[in-house]
Amino acid sequence: MSTGQSGPTGIVMMNLGGPRTLDDVNPFLRALFEDREIIQLPLQGWLGPFIADRRTKKIQQHYQEIGGGSPILDWTETQGRGMVERLDHLSPATAPHRFYVAFRYIEPSSETALKAMAADGVTRAVAFTQYPQFSCSTTGSSLNELWRAARRADLHDHFTWSVIDRWPTHPGFVDAMTATVRQGLQAFDEAVRDDVVLLFSAHSLPLSVIDRGDAYPAEVGASVHEVMRRLDYRHEYLLTYQSEVGPVRWLGPSTETVIEDLGKKRRKHVLVVGIAFTSDHIETLHELDIEYGELAHRVGIEHFHRAPALNGMPAFQDALADIVATHLASGEPCHPNYGLRCPGCVNPQCRNVLQPVAPFRRTAVTVSPKNRQYPTR
Amino acid sequence: MSTGQSGPTGIVMMNLGGPRTLDDVNPFLRALFEDREIIQLPLQGWLGPFIADRRTKKIQQHYQEIGGGSPILDWTETQGRGMVERLDHLSPATAPHRFYVAFRYIEPSSETALKAMAADGVTRAVAFTQYPQFSCSTTGSSLNELWRAARRADLHDHFTWSVIDRWPTHPGFVDAMTATVRQGLQAFDEAVRDDVVLLFSAHSLPLSVIDRGDAYPAEVGASVHEVMRRLDYRHEYLLTYQSEVGPVRWLGPSTETVIEDLGKKRRKHVLVVGIAFTSDHIETLHELDIEYGELAHRVGIEHFHRAPALNGMPAFQDALADIVATHLASGEPCHPNYGLRCPGCVNPQCRNVLQPVAPFRRTAVTVSPKNRQYPTR
Repeated sequence: MSTGQSGPTGIVMMNLGGPRTLDDVNPFLRALFEDREIIQLPLQGWLGPFIADRRTKKIQQHYQEIGGGSPILDWTETQGRGMVERLDHLSPATAPHRFYVAFRYIEPSSETALKAMAADGVTRAVAFTQYPQFSCSTTGSSLNELWRAARRADLHDHFTWSVIDRWPTHPGFVDAMTATVRQGLQAFDEAVRDDVVLLFSAHSLPLSVIDRGDAYPAEVGASVHEVMRRLDYRHEYLLTYQSEVGPVRWLGPSTETVIEDLGKKRRKHVLVVGIAFTSDHIETLHELDIEYGELAHRVGIEHFHRAPALNGMPAFQDALADIVATHLASGEPCHPNYGLRCPGCVNPQCRNVLQPVAPFRRTAVTVSPKNRQYPTR
Repeated sequence: MSTGQSGPTGIVMMNLGGPRTLDDVNPFLRALFEDREIIQLPLQGWLGPFIADRRTKKIQQHYQEIGGGSPILDWTETQGRGMVERLDHLSPATAPHRFYVAFRYIEPSSETALKAMAADGVTRAVAFTQYPQFSCSTTGSSLNELWRAARRADLHDHFTWSVIDRWPTHPGFVDAMTATVRQGLQAFDEAVRDDVVLLFSAHSLPLSVIDRGDAYPAEVGASVHEVMRRLDYRHEYLLTYQSEVGPVRWLGPSTETVIEDLGKKRRKHVLVVGIAFTSDHIETLHELDIEYGELAHRVGIEHFHRAPALNGMPAFQDALADIVATHLASGEPCHPNYGLRCPGCVNPQCRNVLQPVAPFRRTAVTVSPKNRQYPTR
C-alpha cells in the first residue's frame, strides 16, 4: 500500500512492562495500583500507594530471586529489532520501520515512545499490542493510556494511527508457541513423555471484568485449541488461570489449585505453558517456575517443567513482522471487533483510535455519572 | 479398518432430550433434578421432586408456547438417518451402521438404546455425544449414565465401545454452523447488515463446575473463533452464556444482561447464534426467540434474530458422518483428552469406557468419603 507518508513507520509495542531493578519495584507497583481502569479502590489516591508500599518488600524479594529485575524490556527490544528488520523486506512501501516500546507502568512509557517517534519524524504509527489475546485490562488499558499520553504531550494531531489489538490465532504465533511446547516436552524422559499433562496457564481476570463482556477467555481458548491441533491432540491438556490477588473472585480454574489437584490424582509429569505471555517476566520466572514448581514438588508431581517463553525465538519475530505487514497492507484502522465495547463497559474512553488511517466507528458511549471514576487526562 | 465384528455398528447419539408432550414435562424435570452429577441438593430425594413439581406448570406453559413439546427427538432422528446413510458409503468395512438415540432425562433412555442395540445384534458400539463441546455436565453425565445403564441391563460385557466425546472445531460442524450464521444475516436489510452484532450464546455452567477444570469454556471459545475466521471477522461478535437458574454463581457474561447492555449502548441489530446446540429445543425456541426477543424489543434493539439451528441441514449430516467415519478409522477408544478427569473431580465414575476397542487409560481416582454423593448404579 502507499500511505503517502513521509518518514519512517512507527510501531508502538505495548505491554505491561516490569521493573528492571529493585529500585523500580515501588514506582512500578504504585503506577499499577493507581490505574483505575484496572483496579478500583476507595480513596485510591491514598490507598493505592499504601498497598503498593506494603507489597514492595515482598515483590522486591521475588525480583531478587529471578536475578534482580524483569527481562521484559530486553526481550521486547530483541523482538522489536527482529520485527522491523523483517518488515523492511516484507513491506518496502512503508519502510523504514522503527519500533518504540510503550510500557504501561514503567519507563519507557507511552509518552516517552510518542516523543521519540515525533523526534524521528514518524507520522504513520501502528499501536501494536504485545498481548496476543484482547482484554480491556491489558490491551484496552494500554491503548487508553496511549491516547491520553498523546494529548498530554500535545501530539494528538501528530500521527495517523492504526491499531493491532489482538492476534490469538495468528498462524505464525501459534506455530512458535507450539514449538515452545515441543521444546518443553524434550525436558521429559521419552519413556514418560506420553504421560505429560499440558497445563496452559494464562493470567486470570476478576469475574467482574468477564461479566461485562471481555473477549479474553474465548480468545485464550482459541489459542489453546490451535496449539493442540498442531500437536494432533496427542497430550492431555487443560486451560487454567494464574496470578489472582486480592479479595474479589477471579476466573478459574486456578493454576495453583489445579497443580494441587493433579498431585492428588497422582499425575507425575506436568508441562506448564504460558499461553498469554510472549516474554519471560515475574509471572513466568517466579510464579510458574519457583512458586508453582515448589508446590508441584510438595504434592508429588515428579517432573514439573515449563515450556520456554517465546523471548528471542526468530520464528516469533517472523510472526510479529507478518502480523504488522498484513495489517499495513489491509489499510484498515483496526480489527473489526475493536469497535465493540464490552456491553457492560462504563468507561467512555474505551475503543477510541486517534486520527485513524481509515474510517472507524465504535459502539456508542452511555454517559452516566459512574463514568467519572475514570481519568480523562 | 477391520473390526472383526459381526452385525451392524451401533452409534449411540447422546443428548439431553426434552419432553415431547406437556405430560412429559414433570417426569423430565424430576429426572433432571434427581441427577446428582449435575445438581447437588440437600435431601435430594425429597427436594429434587419438590422443585421439579413446583416448576412444572411454568415450564409446561413454555412448551405450550413453542407448539406443545420439544422437537429434539425428531431432529435427532433426522440427523441420525442422514448420518448412517452416509456412513454406509464412507466406511463400508463397518457397515451397516444403525443409530440409537439415548436421552439423559426422557425416553428413549440409555437403557432403551442399549436393549435395542442388543436386539439388533450390535456388538461394536460408538458412544457419540451430540454436544459439540465437552462438559462434565452434559457429555460426562450422559456417558456415566450409559455405563450405569449397561450394568443395570446386564449388558456391560455385551458391546465393544469407543467414545466420541467432543468435536468443537470439526471443519464440517464449523462450516455448517457458519452457514446458519450467513442464513441468519439474510434476515437483516442489506443496508444494516454490517452493523449486526453476532451474539454467540452457549448454555452456562455453575462456576463450581468451571473451577474444578471443565473443558467447556475453552472449547466453546474455539468454536466461536473458527466460525468467525470463516466469516473473515467481518462482524463484531461476543460469546455469552445463557440459562442460569438457582442461587449459585454461573459463568458469564450473561446473554440476558448483554442484550440489555447492547440496548443501552444503542445497538439496533443483533443476531444470536446458539453455538453449543445442534437442534432446536426449549433454550432456542423459547428462551432465545421469545424471552430474549421480547427483552431485545424492550431495550430498543430494532432487529433481533436468531441464526437457525442445524436441525435437518444436510451439511450437518455430512459432518456427523465424517466425525464417526474418522473416529472408526482411527481405531482409538476416545479423544486423548477424555482420560484426563477434571483435576477437582470427586466423582469416581468419570471418564470410564466399558470394554474399550483399544487400551484406554484415565487419570487416577482419589477415593474420599465425598465420593459417596454420586450414585454407583
